[in-house]
Amino acid sequence: MHPVIVIHGGAGAMTRSAMSAEKEREYHAALRLVLQAGLAVLEAGGSAVDAVTAAVVELEDCPLFNAGRGAVFTSDATHELDAAIMDGASLRTGAIANVHHIRNPILAARSVMQNSRHVFFVGEGAERFARTQGLEMVEESYFSTPERHAQLLRVQRDTPDAAVLDHDGQAIVESQPAAPAHPLDIDKKFGTVGAVALDAHGNLAAATSTGGITNKQVGRVGDAPIIGAGTYASNETCAVSATGTGEMYIRKVAAYDIAARMRYTGATLEQAAHAVMFEELPSIGGKGGLIAVDAQGNITLPFNTEGMYRGYARVGSDPVTEIYR
Amino acid sequence: MHPVIVIHGGAGAMTRSAMSAEKEREYHAALRLVLQAGLAVLEAGGSAVDAVTAAVVELEDCPLFNAGRGAVFTSDATHELDAAIMDGASLRTGAIANVHHIRNPILAARSVMQNSRHVFFVGEGAERFARTQGLEMVEESYFSTPERHAQLLRVQRDTPDAAVLDHDGQAIVESQPAAPAHPLDIDKKFGTVGAVALDAHGNLAAATSTGGITNKQVGRVGDAPIIGAGTYASNETCAVSATGTGEMYIRKVAAYDIAARMRYTGATLEQAAHAVMFEELPSIGGKGGLIAVDAQGNITLPFNTEGMYRGYARVGSDPVTEIYR
Repeated sequence: MHPVIVIHGGAGAMTRSAMSAEKEREYHAALRLVLQAGLAVLEAGGSAVDAVTAAVVELEDCPLFNAGRGAVFTSDATHELDAAIMDGASLRTGAIANVHHIRNPILAARSVMQNSRHVFFVGEGAERFARTQGLEMVEESYFSTPERHAQLLRVQRDTPDAAVLDHDGQAIVESQPAAPAHPLDIDKKFGTVGAVALDAHGNLAAATSTGGITNKQVGRVGDAPIIGAGTYASNETCAVSATGTGEMYIRKVAAYDIAARMRYTGATLEQAAHAVMFEELPSIGGKGGLIAVDAQGNITLPFNTEGMYRGYARVGSDPVTEIYR
Repeated sequence: MHPVIVIHGGAGAMTRSAMSAEKEREYHAALRLVLQAGLAVLEAGGSAVDAVTAAVVELEDCPLFNAGRGAVFTSDATHELDAAIMDGASLRTGAIANVHHIRNPILAARSVMQNSRHVFFVGEGAERFARTQGLEMVEESYFSTPERHAQLLRVQRDTPDAAVLDHDGQAIVESQPAAPAHPLDIDKKFGTVGAVALDAHGNLAAATSTGGITNKQVGRVGDAPIIGAGTYASNETCAVSATGTGEMYIRKVAAYDIAARMRYTGATLEQAAHAVMFEELPSIGGKGGLIAVDAQGNITLPFNTEGMYRGYARVGSDPVTEIYR
């Protein structure tokens, strides 16, 4: 076995020219810390589930990424957080959506996986469950940062109708898949975070967490907490975590489609992931990226945007972090 | 094209001995009315999307079935409704979960599909969206029936801990897949409703709606509104609506797995649906049923419980309704 952890911090229109060298260094340093958290688990012989949990907790705690602290604002200037985790060894999974007070949504998803007979909780019920599990609850303001609030005001100023008037968005995207001015692109990046890992025992796991889309309508849930769309893991095939226009990942059942192609057509991880990322998703206007690992430790990090915060680390090797193509 | 509509009103432990002849006639008559509503659309040359919508509205309005009026109660004696719809021609979809005041959840899901750039809304945000769409809102008591309330009290009396103490339910089910006393079986049937259809234009559609599980924890969401788990449609393969232990349908990405098997292995609708229903789902303790139709008008209605309220109708033929094996 070749234990490995792969992470992403969101895909989108990040261009070298638009980012200062200092900001760039900041992101690389943050991604490196995240990888080291996951790698430490794998080096100690820990499980893939523990490794992706550790990595996503770091991503949630870092205000640079859109999950946990630093989550984007909804159109009501609130935060709504979603997360999911899946254990490839047992196909057990836990997911939560639309929570406002759970400091680390991925820990709540993990508690659902381990301590509930259900797999998906939303809203108040999810928060009630988290409290019974003794998870740390915070005021909603904990998630807010000045940068994200400025981003909300900018989006609301530039495209005030984006959240309410785009009455036929799914059709618009279908007929204009390359339209750069689509409201979903306003934010310019899709700030979901995630991790996938293979551990020394040959087990795979995937975890995803997000604050959604800036200025999104209240109550909207994307692909992150949807098993098979934004998150999936099975030892038989692969572990996947996605970031992008979540609606299209849901409609294409993107994460599971990668596993299905491997299982049923004998495609390699890279072939399957590339078919979904560069054929299936673009066919309905889907934009973003994903990370995936298979049971042999092969990894792939495809995206069809200008950049994706990403990285990977193998036990015994230095972590690698990247932003652009 | 051979237009056809297929419906289900939930699967479970319905046995001939436990049901009066009168109750049985009542169910057959109700299923027949539901089929006629969908068939009228298909006979008039209407779309599969319109046909499944019409059928599911009837199922929601009928107190015999666990969706809309007649929905089961949560552990808080409230109602939480989920629904989803998918158009196989465009892969457009809409879903809502955890709503309390929308008279016909399937109409809200359909509004999401047609009038939103998002595909999934939960809780308050879903209700707010429904209001902007002019959908009929009702007091939560509209959904309540004396029979369902008696059912809640019975479950809470017989297994008071079911909702809170089964701390490792996913594992329990894995190790004891045949355990008849599992809390998820208390209700004895899984009252999701759904419809799939093929129209004269060769288009497929699927719709699913549910009130969840009696005495379920607040905030729990099952497979019904999860695209790929309880609901899926693509003209390329099939349309599917499921009913059962939703957690296992989510973990197995059950509905999309049927489509994937057809697409990638060349399996027939029946082969693919049976593999999922009788191999994949039982391998993790999944119980229930599903209905499916392909683009040639082939249909299948497999279940691994004692019965499933179900039926189908082809243009030009009498509707067929069944309950037991």
